Amino acid sequence: MDANIPISEKKRVVIVGGGFGGLKLAQEVLKSDFQVVLVDRNNYHQFQPLFYQVATAGLEPSSIAFPFRKIFHDEKNFHFRLTDVKNIQTENKIVETTIGNIQYDYLVIATGADTNFFGNQRIKERALPMKSIAEALALRNTIFQRLEDAINSVNEEERQKCLNIVVVGGGATGVEVAGTLAEMRSFILPKDYPEMDFSKMKIVLLEGSPRVLNAMSEVSCVKAKEYLIKLGVEVYNNTHVLDYDGEYVELKEGEKIPTKTLIWAAGIIGNRISGLPEKSDAPGGRVFVDTFNQVADCENVFVLGDVACMISDEYPRGHPQMAQPAIQQGKNLGENFKRIFNGKPLKPFKYKNLGSMATVGRNKAVVELPNYNFQGFFAWVVWLVVHLKSILGIKNKFVVFLNWVWNYITYNLSLRLIIKPRK
Amino acid sequence: MDANIPISEKKRVVIVGGGFGGLKLAQEVLKSDFQVVLVDRNNYHQFQPLFYQVATAGLEPSSIAFPFRKIFHDEKNFHFRLTDVKNIQTENKIVETTIGNIQYDYLVIATGADTNFFGNQRIKERALPMKSIAEALALRNTIFQRLEDAINSVNEEERQKCLNIVVVGGGATGVEVAGTLAEMRSFILPKDYPEMDFSKMKIVLLEGSPRVLNAMSEVSCVKAKEYLIKLGVEVYNNTHVLDYDGEYVELKEGEKIPTKTLIWAAGIIGNRISGLPEKSDAPGGRVFVDTFNQVADCENVFVLGDVACMISDEYPRGHPQMAQPAIQQGKNLGENFKRIFNGKPLKPFKYKNLGSMATVGRNKAVVELPNYNFQGFFAWVVWLVVHLKSILGIKNKFVVFLNWVWNYITYNLSLRLIIKPRK
Repeated sequence: MDANIPISEKKRVVIVGGGFGGLKLAQEVLKSDFQVVLVDRNNYHQFQPLFYQVATAGLEPSSIAFPFRKIFHDEKNFHFRLTDVKNIQTENKIVETTIGNIQYDYLVIATGADTNFFGNQRIKERALPMKSIAEALALRNTIFQRLEDAINSVNEEERQKCLNIVVVGGGATGVEVAGTLAEMRSFILPKDYPEMDFSKMKIVLLEGSPRVLNAMSEVSCVKAKEYLIKLGVEVYNNTHVLDYDGEYVELKEGEKIPTKTLIWAAGIIGNRISGLPEKSDAPGGRVFVDTFNQVADCENVFVLGDVACMISDEYPRGHPQMAQPAIQQGKNLGENFKRIFNGKPLKPFKYKNLGSMATVGRNKAVVELPNYNFQGFFAWVVWLVVHLKSILGIKNKFVVFLNWVWNYITYNLSLRLIIKPRK
Repeated sequence: MDANIPISEKKRVVIVGGGFGGLKLAQEVLKSDFQVVLVDRNNYHQFQPLFYQVATAGLEPSSIAFPFRKIFHDEKNFHFRLTDVKNIQTENKIVETTIGNIQYDYLVIATGADTNFFGNQRIKERALPMKSIAEALALRNTIFQRLEDAINSVNEEERQKCLNIVVVGGGATGVEVAGTLAEMRSFILPKDYPEMDFSKMKIVLLEGSPRVLNAMSEVSCVKAKEYLIKLGVEVYNNTHVLDYDGEYVELKEGEKIPTKTLIWAAGIIGNRISGLPEKSDAPGGRVFVDTFNQVADCENVFVLGDVACMISDEYPRGHPQMAQPAIQQGKNLGENFKRIFNGKPLKPFKYKNLGSMATVGRNKAVVELPNYNFQGFFAWVVWLVVHLKSILGIKNKFVVFLNWVWNYITYNLSLRLIIKPRK
């Protein structure tokens, strides 16, 4: 069965995935005279860096989700399809999807990455990931349901399990969610639950390496850990999770931590699609690509962003799996489509490191620019401005800004809703 | 098992349900020296009159949902419990809940009403109700998923089933949702789906009686129908749904309308709780109460709002099941608790009809005050002001106002997200 895509005389570029890379690419490709078909399993682009604020009831999903159809309102050559990709037939130039086959002239895979549970099925079934808006909402529901469970518990041990929250993974996501939860414990929860003694609530951050924010410089790591400890997060370094039964987190190092809420931000795995040649298999579910984001021996197939693995002297294990490399690859590849259209040679991708940053709590962030590191209030302001600037749409910027200001002044947003799906 | 509620020397008032009536009552009772325990199956108060705007992607749930714990931050004698009530033991003064038994000195049942499918199981399984925020969100997801399905359909008949929307029930909810959908069809959807011919999309409103908004005066009914027709809604009066197989709505009058989206706003049934004496059973799932909202032969048990049936000469079938009677009963009963506290005689309830209103679309509403009816732009402004005024919290008022202004100017909100629950 063929999917119902309008036939065009233009060459068709099919883009799988509308994350940072796929979205940027689509916008660039549309500047040339191609037909663009974007397929995604959601009808909206997700702003991943702020998932943790949705999970901790600081923002509404709609503030960081942007419907594709709206983004591309004025593009006549753009077609969006809500579907899952099942397989690729590179020889026939066909993408097999749940709504039928889609023929392509050029294919770009920008499927990103998902949570890596490293094969531990028990953890996968019980831990809470945070790699989509739906997952962030599920986490939000769980956090607040557990507090209700805690207040209903007559048994001290049960209550402790409901109160404690363990975050696994000391990268930016883990640090940000642990810090925000600790602030919530200090400023918001005692007002919501006056009957509860929140000095008993533990927020634990587990990290396998000796440092949190391990990808950043030492000064940032030290400062971030200092901030976390100041907020009352218990930071365990050199610690590995062995097992989780839904009640106790068992550490390889021996200890058992009681908790019914285990947040998993410990690793990601590329969303590889079946049908690519075996020799393109890179570690971590990624796909080897050349310097033009092209897959070897596949005519007109490109891969970019988190799922791509482009090896260079500077990045022998591929680029960091973050927004910036994806956006920059999307832009470069988009410009290369213009060159393809004009029959010119392609330009190789060159990653420009713009720096990285993470926020731990109010007035507390770390920022690393290529030649300059700073921390504290100014870093926090920079973090706010950069993220606000990156959010699509004037109204969304305004609503997020309003939420942040409100939250900053009142310490008290009203998004602590447990909206369970309709039965 | 006893629920874990702090023991107090004060008399305990247990309120089941935090809708308009229960919320108002709790606020009033707390002015006297009682312990108040509010139980609800959600951790938030829902502003029902705007469910239809959540369902049609005009508002976010958080704008019309207010966490109980936040509303009552400063009340030491207030305790909230998230639970379902299973049964009442009136002789032992116990409420049985999923978190254990709760002892009461006074019990107030304010459980409201749910959708009435009039015993038709096939319709219940397939039609979409709109009596909670979760249901409104499920409806929103369905509406936009159907449009994606329509665009994927190669078969003309299938596409028609995905495009058409049938609304059953010509009360305020049905009229408001049909009108909003028709506006969306005119102004928003053609931009989102340029490939689709929306002149083929039917929006049908089915109503059993000869008039829409049957509870209002003739001039309002006529005007509302005129507005609906102007917006392109097909209004069927004197029409009854016989059956629905998920693909075709079968009317008693013969016709079959193809649609995969059947919105059910045709009736409500009181959320009666088991354990009350049989002779208190009133029609429509309601509970007979006297003029003090008291249930006969049950010591200290009160029922108010949609689920209560208080018969008087003026209202031989009980008060209309709307926000106003519930709020007014909550207020009167709350004041009666002050009289109970002071050992004074109770004051009977007297309903003051403040009027009613419904909005059909932008600049189109009908308003009925006790001695004065008006329609059109001014009625629409009055509708906006009254609803904005009723929304709790400054920030929520502001966000709703911002959304409305934005929507009015741009005809284009960005809440058209299909956020499916995490699998």
